[in-house]
Parts: sequence; C-alpha cells; structure tokens
Amino acid sequence: MNIVVQTIERADPAVIAGLAECGVATVHEAQGQIGLLACHMRPIFSGAQIAGSAVTVSMPPGDNWMIHVAIEQLQAGDILVCAPTSPCGDGYFGDLLATSAMARGCRGLVIDAGVRDVRDLTKMGFPVWSKCISAQGTVKGKLGSVNTPIICAGAQIRPGDVIVADDDGVCVVRREEAEEVLAKARQRLAAEEAKRARLAAGELGLDLYNMRPTLQEKGLKYV
Amino acid sequence: MNIVVQTIERADPAVIAGLAECGVATVHEAQGQIGLLACHMRPIFSGAQIAGSAVTVSMPPGDNWMIHVAIEQLQAGDILVCAPTSPCGDGYFGDLLATSAMARGCRGLVIDAGVRDVRDLTKMGFPVWSKCISAQGTVKGKLGSVNTPIICAGAQIRPGDVIVADDDGVCVVRREEAEEVLAKARQRLAAEEAKRARLAAGELGLDLYNMRPTLQEKGLKYV
Amino acid sequence: MNIVVQTIERADPAVIAGLAECGVATVHEAQGQIGLLACHMRPIFSGAQIAGSAVTVSMPPGDNWMIHVAIEQLQAGDILVCAPTSPCGDGYFGDLLATSAMARGCRGLVIDAGVRDVRDLTKMGFPVWSKCISAQGTVKGKLGSVNTPIICAGAQIRPGDVIVADDDGVCVVRREEAEEVLAKARQRLAAEEAKRARLAAGELGLDLYNMRPTLQEKGLKYV
Amino acid sequence: MNIVVQTIERADPAVIAGLAECGVATVHEAQGQIGLLACHMRPIFSGAQIAGSAVTVSMPPGDNWMIHVAIEQLQAGDILVCAPTSPCGDGYFGDLLATSAMARGCRGLVIDAGVRDVRDLTKMGFPVWSKCISAQGTVKGKLGSVNTPIICAGAQIRPGDVIVADDDGVCVVRREEAEEVLAKARQRLAAEEAKRARLAAGELGLDLYNMRPTLQEKGLKYV
Amino acid sequence: MNIVVQTIERADPAVIAGLAECGVATVHEAQGQIGLLACHMRPIFSGAQIAGSAVTVSMPPGDNWMIHVAIEQLQAGDILVCAPTSPCGDGYFGDLLATSAMARGCRGLVIDAGVRDVRDLTKMGFPVWSKCISAQGTVKGKLGSVNTPIICAGAQIRPGDVIVADDDGVCVVRREEAEEVLAKARQRLAAEEAKRARLAAGELGLDLYNMRPTLQEKGLKYV
Amino acid sequence: MNIVVQTIERADPAVIAGLAECGVATVHEAQGQIGLLACHMRPIFSGAQIAGSAVTVSMPPGDNWMIHVAIEQLQAGDILVCAPTSPCGDGYFGDLLATSAMARGCRGLVIDAGVRDVRDLTKMGFPVWSKCISAQGTVKGKLGSVNTPIICAGAQIRPGDVIVADDDGVCVVRREEAEEVLAKARQRLAAEEAKRARLAAGELGLDLYNMRPTLQEKGLKYV
Repeated sequence: MNIVVQTIERADPAVIAGLAECGVATVHEAQGQIGLLACHMRPIFSGAQIAGSAVTVSMPPGDNWMIHVAIEQLQAGDILVCAPTSPCGDGYFGDLLATSAMARGCRGLVIDAGVRDVRDLTKMGFPVWSKCISAQGTVKGKLGSVNTPIICAGAQIRPGDVIVADDDGVCVVRREEAEEVLAKARQRLAAEEAKRARLAAGELGLDLYNMRPTLQEKGLKYV
Repeated sequence: MNIVVQTIERADPAVIAGLAECGVATVHEAQGQIGLLACHMRPIFSGAQIAGSAVTVSMPPGDNWMIHVAIEQLQAGDILVCAPTSPCGDGYFGDLLATSAMARGCRGLVIDAGVRDVRDLTKMGFPVWSKCISAQGTVKGKLGSVNTPIICAGAQIRPGDVIVADDDGVCVVRREEAEEVLAKARQRLAAEEAKRARLAAGELGLDLYNMRPTLQEKGLKYV
Repeated sequence: MNIVVQTIERADPAVIAGLAECGVATVHEAQGQIGLLACHMRPIFSGAQIAGSAVTVSMPPGDNWMIHVAIEQLQAGDILVCAPTSPCGDGYFGDLLATSAMARGCRGLVIDAGVRDVRDLTKMGFPVWSKCISAQGTVKGKLGSVNTPIICAGAQIRPGDVIVADDDGVCVVRREEAEEVLAKARQRLAAEEAKRARLAAGELGLDLYNMRPTLQEKGLKYV
Repeated sequence: MNIVVQTIERADPAVIAGLAECGVATVHEAQGQIGLLACHMRPIFSGAQIAGSAVTVSMPPGDNWMIHVAIEQLQAGDILVCAPTSPCGDGYFGDLLATSAMARGCRGLVIDAGVRDVRDLTKMGFPVWSKCISAQGTVKGKLGSVNTPIICAGAQIRPGDVIVADDDGVCVVRREEAEEVLAKARQRLAAEEAKRARLAAGELGLDLYNMRPTLQEKGLKYV
Repeated sequence: MNIVVQTIERADPAVIAGLAECGVATVHEAQGQIGLLACHMRPIFSGAQIAGSAVTVSMPPGDNWMIHVAIEQLQAGDILVCAPTSPCGDGYFGDLLATSAMARGCRGLVIDAGVRDVRDLTKMGFPVWSKCISAQGTVKGKLGSVNTPIICAGAQIRPGDVIVADDDGVCVVRREEAEEVLAKARQRLAAEEAKRARLAAGELGLDLYNMRPTLQEKGLKYV
Repeated sequence: MNIVVQTIERADPAVIAGLAECGVATVHEAQGQIGLLACHMRPIFSGAQIAGSAVTVSMPPGDNWMIHVAIEQLQAGDILVCAPTSPCGDGYFGDLLATSAMARGCRGLVIDAGVRDVRDLTKMGFPVWSKCISAQGTVKGKLGSVNTPIICAGAQIRPGDVIVADDDGVCVVRREEAEEVLAKARQRLAAEEAKRARLAAGELGLDLYNMRPTLQEKGLKYV
C-alpha cells in the first residue's frame, strides 16, 4: 500500500545544528561506529556539511513522481532521503526539483540513485549525496511512499531521523538518540582538540595514547 | 579493413552552439530520453559545457596511434570521440595530443578509456570525458579506423553526429535531427523557465503539474 | 612475525625533488611503463604533485594501530604507504593522524583503503591518494609491520622506494634506480617541450613523428 | 551493546515448507515485489531451494566469533543470516561451522560476506548464498549481536522472519505475513500453471493477457 | 516512436547451423576479432552452444511488456535479443515467457539485464545469456520497439543478424556476412585441428609457428 | 629488458602433492593467513584441487605471445601463472594452448585476465582460475618475461613458488617455506578432524573452544 505520512516528529533544531558542526566521522564514532550509509554515496560538490531531519521517499526504479509528493511534506531544515525499490542509476532529481525543495527550506538531498543538472545544483548551492550522476530521465507513473522507514544505501532510515552529511559521506542518527549522540560527539571533539595541539607539537600517538607497553606485550619487534 | 574517412558532413554551427547552451539533460529529454553515453563517462574537471561534431576513432586496446591520425581530420568545432575495440583503461591521451588537437580547434575529447596529464589538461582548459584517469602508457603499433560509426560507452556515434557534454555526462544527437532537437530543447528550456519562477515562489509541483487527481485515482493515501 | 624496521635507506633528496617535478606520467614512461599503482587510487583533492620516500605499513583490515607505529619512523620528506592484508574500505586515517604526520615532515599518504576527515585534510593541504573515502572507523587491536616490502594497489613497494603522486595517480620508482629514472624523465620532458611548441604551431604528429610511411605500409586507407 | 536474544518467534513450519516450494520469484511477487536481497547474493551450488526461520548475526568485519555464538541459538529448520557491520569479503564460514550448524538442523546460510571450503560444503549439501567466495580467514576477537534486526544485502531482516532462497537469490517474508503471502503465492502458482499449458500449446501472451487493445491505444505501430 | 517490424530477413539456416558448430571464439576470430558482446554476459547454465537469427527488443527499464510483443514475431530458429534503454538488472524473463518462446521454436535469450526462474529454465533446457540473475519483478506499462537495431552489451545488433552464443559469451555476425564468416571459421577450425594434433604430440608453438627468429630479433634474452 | 629464465628451483614433488591435498583455505591458515590471490580469481569449472610449481609470465595487455614462450619452460607438475602489465580482460588462452601445456605435464593455469574455449577446457579437464571469461582474441607482437617475479591478482609470485588452487581460489606458498607450511597444514587438518567429529555429534564450538568465559568477560549479554 502506498502512503504519505504527513506528520512526523523531528529532533530539536539546536541538536541538529550541533550535529552538523560535528560532522560525519565524529558523529559516527560518537554513536559507536554505526549509522553510516555505504561509501558509494558521494557529494556532487565538495565542502558542504549539513544536518537535517529525514523526509523519506520510497520510489519505483526510474520514476520520480513521489519526489514531487514528498516536497509538499518538507519543512525548513529537512533533508530529502530517497531510495528506489530496486537498484537504479537514473537521474531522478534536477534543478527544478531543487528549486522547489529550496523554496520550502530543504537543506539537501540524499539519494541512492542518480542526480542531474549538477552544474546548476552547484551554482544554487544545493548539496546532494548520490550513487551516481546521470542525465537519464525518469517518468511519473507509479506510486511509492513518503515518510515510511526505508533502507537507503544499506542503512535503515526512519522519517525524522537526523541525517548528517559532509565530504566523508552520510550518517544517520536515530531521532530519539540525537541529543545523547551530540553530547558524546562534543566530548569527542573536545578531547581531539587537546590531542591535536600535542600531536602538532610533535608528540607521538604512541606516547599520547600510551601504546608502547601493549605493542611490546603483543610481540611487536623493532629491528 | 582500416580506413580514414576524410570527408564527413557536420551540422550547422549555430545549431551546435545552441545545443551546447541547452546542456545534456535538456537535450536528452528533448530527443525522447535517448542518446546518453553510460554514466561512467565523467569529466576530468567541473564546469565545462560543450557541443561539437564527432570525429570518431576506433582504436585497438592500449594503442593510441589512430588518435594521431584522427587529429589531421579535425576541424574547428569538432570533438574527438574514441572507443577501444575491447575494454581498456590505459591513458591514451595527454597534454601533447591536447596541444595538437587544440591547435586545430578541437573542443574536447570523449574517450571510453583512460586519459592522463589531467593537471595539465585542466590548466589548458581542454575538457575530457573519460572512463578513468590513468598514467598507463600506450604504444603506437596497430591500425584502427577514423570517422566510421562506433559504439562508445554503449551509444552508437557516427562521424558528424553532434556530441553534447557537461557535468551530467555525454549525449549524442544524430546530425540530421540536430535542428529539430534544438527546437524542442529550447521549447523545453522556455517552459522550464516559467516553472522555475513559480516553484521558487513556493508553488508546489503537485499543483503546477496538476498531479493531485491522478495520485488520488491511483490510490495514494495520505495519513 | 610483526616487525618495525627502523633504519631504511632513502634516495637523494634532490633526485626525489626532481621526480616530483616530472610527475607520474613522465616518470612512468621514463622507467619503461612500469611501476603504476592501480587506477582506483585517486587523490582526495586536485592539484597536488609530490614525491617522497616510502615508509610502508602492512596492516590488518579495519585496524589502524600500525599507522601510529609508523609515524614514529617518518622523517621529513617521507610518504606513508599503507596496505591492508585483506581488502578493506574503512577510513583508517583522519585529521589527527595527518596532524601528527605533518609534524614529522610527512608529505602525504598513499593507502589502498579508505580515508576520512577529507574536508580537514584538504584545508590542511595534506594530500592523500586512496581507494575510497569512508567515515567508517577502525580499531587498534592487532599488529602488522612497518617498513617491510608490501603490495599496494597491485604494485610492490619496498621501504625507501620513491613514490611519485599527482592527479594522474601514483607511481613507484625503485630507490636504486631513482637517479637514472630522473635523468631519463628529464630527457623526455626536454624532448616533449620542443614537440609541444611545434604541435601548438599546428604541425601534425603524423609529420613530427614521421608516421605516414609506416601507416601506409601497414595498409591504412584514406577514403 | 552486544546482546544475544535467546527466544524468538518462528512461523508455522507448514507455512515455511509451503514457501520453500513456491520459490523466490513467486514469493517476491506474491508479497508485492518486495523483500529481495541484492542480486550479488549468489548460491555456491545450483539447485538448492529452501525456506527457514532467520537467526540473525550482526558481526564485525573480519571476525566470525559471533557465528559460534549464533549456532547455539539454532533450531531445526532455521537459516543463519549474517551481515558484517562494515563491508567485508573475508571467508567467515567453512566446513567446521557447517558441520556444527547441520548438527542442529540448520538448513543453510545467507551471508553478505565471503564463505570458504565450498567444495566441502557442496559435498555436505549445505547451501550457502554469499557475496563472494574467499579463503581469507577471520579472527575471533570482537563481539556483535545475535537475533537483533539487521540489514543484510540491502534488506531488513528480523529474527524469525522467513527466508526463502533458491537459484534466483534470497527473499525475506515478515513472519507475521508468512501465511498470507503463502496463500497468495499458491494462487499465483495455480494461475501460472493454467497459463503455462496454454502458452506451451502456442497461445500468445498477447492474447492470453488481452494486451492487444492497450498496445494499440498506447500507440504501438506494426510495420 | 515505438514500432514492431514484422518482416525481417534471416540468414540461411544451414549457415546458422554451421556457425553454431564453430562456436563464439572461432567465429569472433574469423570475422577479424569483432562482434563480441561485453563479457558480463554470462550463461545461466554451462554447455549450451547455439546460433540463431536475432529478434531484437528495445525495452524500458523494469518493464517487460515488449517481450510479450516480440514473442509473436519469433520464428523457429530465432534468438531473442533484449536491451533496456537505461541500465537495469531486474528479472525481465522467467519460465512462462520461456514456455511461450519455446513453443515458437526460439533457441534462447540474450538479455543485457536480469533473468529469473533459472532453475526452471535450466530444467527446460532453455539457454539464457544475461547480465545478472535477479528475481526482481518488472511491470507491463510502457512501449518499446521490436526488430529495430539495438545496442546490446556494447555491440550493435540488427534484426536478422546471426547470434552465436556458448560458454565463452555471445558474438554477433552481420546477416549479409554470415556465409563468408562461416567459410573463414571452418578454415580456421581445419587449421586448428592439424595444429592440435602436433601440439598434443609435444611439438612447441614456438616451432610450429616459427616464432624463434622473430623473438630473437625483438631482443628476447634467454638466461 | 625482456628475459626468459630457463632454470628455476622447484619444491619437493611430495610436498607439493601434500599441499594439494590440504587445499587453499587450510594452507592459507597454516602460513598465517597470507598468500591469497584476490577473490576475483575464479575457477572455470568446479571441483579441481591442485598444487604445482609456478612458471610465471609477465605479458603485455592483449598480447599472448609470451605464453607460447613460457610453455617451453614447463615441466611436469608446473602451473602457468600469468599477469598482464596493465589490467586486461581479453581471452589470452584457449584449447590449443591448453593442449600444448598438457603435453608438457602442466597442471593448470592461473591468469589475472581472461580465458576462452572454456567448454573445451572443461572437457579436457584442464583447470583454469581467471579474472573473467572472454572470447576476445589477443595478438602476438610484443615481448614480456618468463620466470621473473610477478604480481598476480595482488600477490607476489616468484618462479618456483608453490601454487595451490581449488574452488576457494588461489594461494601461493614460498618455495623455501613449502615443507614447513605443509607440516603446519597437516597438523591443522588433524586437529580439525577431531573437532569435526565432536561438532557433528552436537557439541558446540562455544564449549569445544571454551569461548564462554571470554564472551562473558567481554560483556556479551544473553537476554
């Protein structure tokens, strides 16, 4: 059955903003090395680092009709997350859809399929993480669902979960854990800051992390 | 038999220029979603958007001799389109060949194989769409053909066909259909321009395209 | 047995600097079209062109402990070269390790696995050639070896061999052949310089290389 | 947190047996074209067609310790379903584990990673669907979880869900829908049986499915 | 425009039978190392070696409607050759379509997409060469064309061209060249037969083909 | 420089025979999980399990001339191991070369490229492990080397090293370590035999390997 869920819960905007600042690698570590989407999901341009609430789209291969449906459900701060029901590399999304999504305050697109008009999207500053870039057009003929749980690039994403994306890829944080993950991520960043200064000054990780005794115990030989 | 066809018909330069402005996605749609090369064909740098007449090269794997032969056949406004007779990722083309091609007015290279010297090619502003980047050298030992129909990245390309290429990939337009395709592409762009303004103003595609009745008829449920 | 070789021979710094200037494609040709790493090894940002002495790391899949060990062995002008003992795309290396490596004068990283924090690495100007970009974290639990011969992306690399890397990929030059390869590479560059000018002036490769007689002899037909 | 869930609900054995008879393609269609695992999941030998209750394993890359843990949880008629927490092609499973699994009545293995000893597994008649075949050994050092929901080859699988596998691949049926899906699958098979006879007698699908009017209406031209 | 060409020319059945006996590798060599489809086209079972006249199908991704249309155009001795208009791995074809195709004397299927029911197809002895095996279902909603020239797995195939397929893959022979290619293929086989006996008796290819002088001249050193 | 090394040392035939009996997975474990070739190396038919001394061939892409040269260097019990100098999937080897190799007592072929005539090779019982199957022909025009160290599918192989190959893939054992590796492999097999009986009787690996205390200590929770 094809449905559109119109009301979803979202995480606290301040928490989401905090996760965006932390970035994918830190957030992924902070929640115990889980939640990454497959590394074939690459940004169409470098330097974007965002977080937002997932509005999910389950869509047929080669058919982008449901993205139009999904746009109506977008609120400011959301990220569109789209997965086809069987593998597809067609270009589901281009500059017109991006114009419409941006008009509703959408922060970006994560799609386990293709995207097109990437020169325009880059000029517009609308970030996309996708499986590929392809001008192959799609049709509008079959239904799917909006705001139901989906599997996107190997990760389960529920509507309202927090998506974090940057040049390292894409990570999902469960909405109800977002605040706790942010706290851990910030602790991690703080600890890294101190380490960074010491490492930059020439101190070795071997000493900073006190690795030498364990390495010796495990039998590493220096020759 | 290995041949070089020295006289080929080309499309009207004004039509070619028009197709370049339209870009790959629009041209591909305008001609009925056909003509795309496989999406593994990626530009070596972002931002180039060109169109030109195909000078085709069928070449042996690992042997770039015929590219030298093809350069003599280039006229201003042409695009070199090269395909190996069996799959190969070697670096067939570098900055010297690009210098020579540019001296003849060539606008770029489309090659279903590897390319090298990409830093120099980028500095020179010579755009290339290729299967991969590889420094692996080739030899000059075996013949192929120039300006015969080839299959390049899954698409048939005949000498003189119009090649359109940008950040979305590469598309081929049959020479004799170029003018008609341009007309349709321009209509499409004009229609998109009007839609873009309305979408930017917040109007939904659901309303702009009058999709709601059909979605309801197909059974989409809002919950 | 897991060992760390603490003393390795390095090539003459002037020779290494010379090889960096020549770049990958020229060096690869100068040594007889050998020494390239597989073309899946791509830079995380464009424009870097470096050479340095290899400090090698053989490491378990998903475990970056030995990179910490290797950093102590780095001298100014070295390049870290890392290969997992079975295929792995995890993100072994990020900005903290880069900070530490840079503090010791390391020029860059070549890793047949994943890397992360690429936005930071780009800001820091620390170049990396890797199989993929992935935020997937690793652990520190198992030993490997430092400065033993390894196979990295299909090429054998011995500690102290010269690594050359640029936008075309990565090439290895045996330490004891580095001076001879540099001499040949410079000859090649000089010869190319003269050819470049003639090609830019419109002379054809067919004439410059005197290819016409051989093409005719092999049976190429102009029609 | 790493847990082993010791009590899971399973579907009715008669329903499971019925789904095995129907096979993957029919079951997939009967539940509305959902539930397939990615098509890189291939059998190590041809001809097996099974169904069983999923005992799920979430395991670290390169570490098969949790499979030993999972075997204790197996009951007659179960199928082991294993997914690594980051992509891995190592050979997690061989003839000793298969001996142990068979001793507990396990019907087969579905693993989004590698398997080894495939000649022995074939002789033993223990069917496996895997991402690859690799002799690469694993270690036993890190925990994972048993009988928690996992994502395996792009599909969500919960413990106790019904797995159907044959030469076409692998499909998952939610435990609570198994009976209804079986009923639909049997209807489908019955309908196909009647059609098969008519098609074998030379009747065309165009007539059997009354496609001619719609084709004409859509504009198909016979020339 | 979507069309069905109802009348195509076919090659002489005796020539087709001869080409089947020669097999793919010999035919490919006999016509000058051209005509191979990409090597991702693999048989679903081993040992089939066939040739037949191509009935071509250009079909939308995920939509197998046109295969039903094509079956009506099949004559005894034909081979169905299907290509999607954009890349697709869905399972377009199963046992019911095979039943119908066999009822019309079809010898097999070549499809640059997925196939399913492979256990049944194997039992029926209906050979298929495909890009993958997938149970993923398709729909019947959009038109394509039958018996127009297509690009299938990188090769151009025109209706009525002769398809040769065996465990080595698939090769296409232009209909009007089939007789000449067969003659050359038979010469090649005859020559190979004589060589095979001498090689089996221990004579070396180095002597049989008189390679030693050329090897010496090229500079091969025996040490 | 292109050379043919005519005299190589080989391991003791009895040791080689012993390694063949142990198979790839056991040998790989016995030598400390090293020596595997990449898992894209697959057998053309199932069930072969062999070992032999490597006669190595370094050959240009698309050129099989050096295989003819190598055959003269084969002795009874050898295995041909071939690697192209840049990636290539052409069909370098077919039934005539196999006839010649078998006449010299060659046990099989390992090639990081393509092979053809696989139906004939299967009938002849000549086992091959290759990257792919392709009818694409090669030429005889350029030199390479025989019996020099090569990198094949990611592993270094020196002439005379012992190659072990079966349905799990291919493993290389250094000649000078072959006897020691065999001893360890046999110990491993003996230990496995005892374990197999206990596992078949229903004993759990958790108990057999005394894993429960460590699992508890690491924090695994049973719920």
